Amino acid sequence: MAQNKILVANRGEIAVRVIRACKELGIPVVAIYSKADESSLHTKLADEAVCIGPARSKDSYLNMQAVLSAAIATGCNAIHPGYGFLSENPKFIEMVEATGIKFIGPSSNVVSKLGDKATAKMIAKAAGVPVVEGSEGIIETKEDGIKIAKQIGYPVMIKASAGGGGRGISVCYNDQEFSKAFEMTSMEAETSFGDKSVYVEKFVENPRHIEVQIMGDSKGNVVHLFERDCSMQRRNQKLIEEAPSAILNDDLRKKMGLAAVKLAKSVGYEGAGTIEFLVDKRKNFYFIEMNTRIQVEHPVTEMITGIDLVKEQIKVAYGKELSFKQKDLKILGHAIECRINAENPLNNFMPTPGRIKKVLFPGGFNVRFDSHIYPDYDVPPFYDSMVGKLIVFAPNRKEAIRKMRVSLEQLVIDGITTNIEYQYAIMHAPDFIKGTYDTGFIAKFNGLIQGEYNEELIG
Amino acid sequence: MAQNKILVANRGEIAVRVIRACKELGIPVVAIYSKADESSLHTKLADEAVCIGPARSKDSYLNMQAVLSAAIATGCNAIHPGYGFLSENPKFIEMVEATGIKFIGPSSNVVSKLGDKATAKMIAKAAGVPVVEGSEGIIETKEDGIKIAKQIGYPVMIKASAGGGGRGISVCYNDQEFSKAFEMTSMEAETSFGDKSVYVEKFVENPRHIEVQIMGDSKGNVVHLFERDCSMQRRNQKLIEEAPSAILNDDLRKKMGLAAVKLAKSVGYEGAGTIEFLVDKRKNFYFIEMNTRIQVEHPVTEMITGIDLVKEQIKVAYGKELSFKQKDLKILGHAIECRINAENPLNNFMPTPGRIKKVLFPGGFNVRFDSHIYPDYDVPPFYDSMVGKLIVFAPNRKEAIRKMRVSLEQLVIDGITTNIEYQYAIMHAPDFIKGTYDTGFIAKFNGLIQGEYNEELIG
Repeated sequence: MAQNKILVANRGEIAVRVIRACKELGIPVVAIYSKADESSLHTKLADEAVCIGPARSKDSYLNMQAVLSAAIATGCNAIHPGYGFLSENPKFIEMVEATGIKFIGPSSNVVSKLGDKATAKMIAKAAGVPVVEGSEGIIETKEDGIKIAKQIGYPVMIKASAGGGGRGISVCYNDQEFSKAFEMTSMEAETSFGDKSVYVEKFVENPRHIEVQIMGDSKGNVVHLFERDCSMQRRNQKLIEEAPSAILNDDLRKKMGLAAVKLAKSVGYEGAGTIEFLVDKRKNFYFIEMNTRIQVEHPVTEMITGIDLVKEQIKVAYGKELSFKQKDLKILGHAIECRINAENPLNNFMPTPGRIKKVLFPGGFNVRFDSHIYPDYDVPPFYDSMVGKLIVFAPNRKEAIRKMRVSLEQLVIDGITTNIEYQYAIMHAPDFIKGTYDTGFIAKFNGLIQGEYNEELIG
Repeated sequence: MAQNKILVANRGEIAVRVIRACKELGIPVVAIYSKADESSLHTKLADEAVCIGPARSKDSYLNMQAVLSAAIATGCNAIHPGYGFLSENPKFIEMVEATGIKFIGPSSNVVSKLGDKATAKMIAKAAGVPVVEGSEGIIETKEDGIKIAKQIGYPVMIKASAGGGGRGISVCYNDQEFSKAFEMTSMEAETSFGDKSVYVEKFVENPRHIEVQIMGDSKGNVVHLFERDCSMQRRNQKLIEEAPSAILNDDLRKKMGLAAVKLAKSVGYEGAGTIEFLVDKRKNFYFIEMNTRIQVEHPVTEMITGIDLVKEQIKVAYGKELSFKQKDLKILGHAIECRINAENPLNNFMPTPGRIKKVLFPGGFNVRFDSHIYPDYDVPPFYDSMVGKLIVFAPNRKEAIRKMRVSLEQLVIDGITTNIEYQYAIMHAPDFIKGTYDTGFIAKFNGLIQGEYNEELIG
């Protein structure tokens, strides 16, 4: 791959992650950064770094012209989008494609179909994959929405078509709440994603959130790399991910994996992708959306399969065949990831940007800390609050939990408030240990910690 | 293992390593420390920490009474010795055994036999394992030594029976050098190991140093976990270790593994052990010694097999059967370890103790940094200069070298001189890349760097 060169169109830990992969593959790599990220680690690790605008995402990491210009100016023949920002923006991908630069991910056409959640559901349905009941597409007016909500029965969710990462979602229990939430969600969607389209979906209460990792190549091969259980969420944002899921048996795992592969094959999917499902109490699973890029939690899958997903993304984008087949893959043990955020879990997860003083990363066998922070680094207030991901791997879930506890004890980030202790508390919570938690866990857990549930505790 | 409790009779990274294993197994763990190590990381990570004396090893980590008293006083039922210090001292092990405390390692009887290198060679011979020619035991006088040296032919080595880690070895090319070295080596052995016994051995010039990891349990099971190539040495001290060895084929690997198992079985070996071989240019292998404890470079084997050797040591010591059989083991990829030392490689590897300022550990997939250092830590001048071990794992050797380069680039230890850049240079040296290096590499490499070989380079 001597003449290849990659621009990483992202920041933070995922930029660092992708840069490492490029360097390990011997491919020159270019970083981009906003004014606020001038001294960020990814700018130091890359072979070159280009400033693409002011702090605000809108003016830098979301500025398609600026990002594309940086790639052209530095002679890159591929762009790795990471997650978030422009990674699932079909317009950007189309622009990239028009220049002849390779977008490391599926084509704009595929992203366009799957990125729109309403369309994605139709594709899933057509591929025979069960979906959550909801509107058969975008809802134009409040009145239409209420009609559908009544048909499928409250509670329902109003969701931004272009949303992601838990943002752009409102839960409504009646008409009145729906009326209020509709315009707000639509407005928020416009502001956050530049697209005000929303759709309506049945709200499955306290489900498990389980997603299947898939990889496809340009030769038509698609395989799944098993599931990740991402049920530990705060405000619809994942906090802890693990694989395999404590509630799946081999039979259900196989069914969900095959469903994911079928869906991906039906659109000729290339690259890494994730198919998200809700699993209800009776172990029914429903497709909710597909993420057409690498996920934050991809290391969990890397640890249980031994496959480097980012390197594989790059190789596949450059036209190579997948380096493994479905039958080569097996679950080698259990992995857990704790997202380490600059936030105060006991103050409504309020972000806590500021200057980090000392840092100490845990080491040891099968312990991994992916991060962009370093001593005296300023966590800027403009972006996601995640400052690192602590991932452990062990032969089984019990040992993995113990390893995570020991590793959290040894992770030091001085100077700002983080959720390290909060994650440590979860690693000792009976519902987590038993594996019986669902997406409602955090709300209840915070209640317990803050005393709201004292009555219940006393009995 | 509810009532178990372990004392870790060591310091530095290996103390941290063992403490992590104990905690992950849910076993309470006690650290010991000298006055110089009061603020060392291992004292902070353990459940309890006991001061056992002044800075000098002789007065603290080598003080058998003090160490044993600490174990008794804190109610430990087992002692993990780590490597170095008292780990291979049969007298200490005997004392431990006499108190009813479990020594995590083989019995004093076995250590006594194998720890004495002259006796160990006889055991190897009896088990049909090829050995390097040499004295059939301890040499009492200079004159006896010279007689044997003449018999087997110069060059020869004078080696301390109780030596280890490359210390207590002199190479002699003639009678005169032998005369000079004999008393010096004997004296050094007395000072360093409390035992002045030496023996003589044929000096194999520029061999590969290849060792086989074995594990035994109390049920009589012994398996090998393949080899490590430790040929990259400075002054007989290992600097880089890798597995598998670039020069072994499956046939030789199997032969050496079986030889190691045979030797270990012949003495009823329990726990982790390493059988060291020299391999000459014609791929003949010769037993040189057995280390009856965990090695510095054990993580290399952990990475290629997926087995946690320290946890396994502990389980086996508590009477459990080995959790795997020979047929379960396979080489999953390639691992390399770079020892990160507080030393100046261009000034005769002179130690460079002092205050560390900032540190930043590399992260990412299959990258491991085992260390006891942290920001503002003082590296004391009293002990080994190693401050950490950087280990990487990849599907093959080429990718592993690339990963090591990228990881070394990202490892920051500010405030003291280290060998990080030197290791980085080795990762780019043609002989290392080709895998054709031998134990003579470093001397030549330093010559090249320092210009002595300029003539040769110019041609």
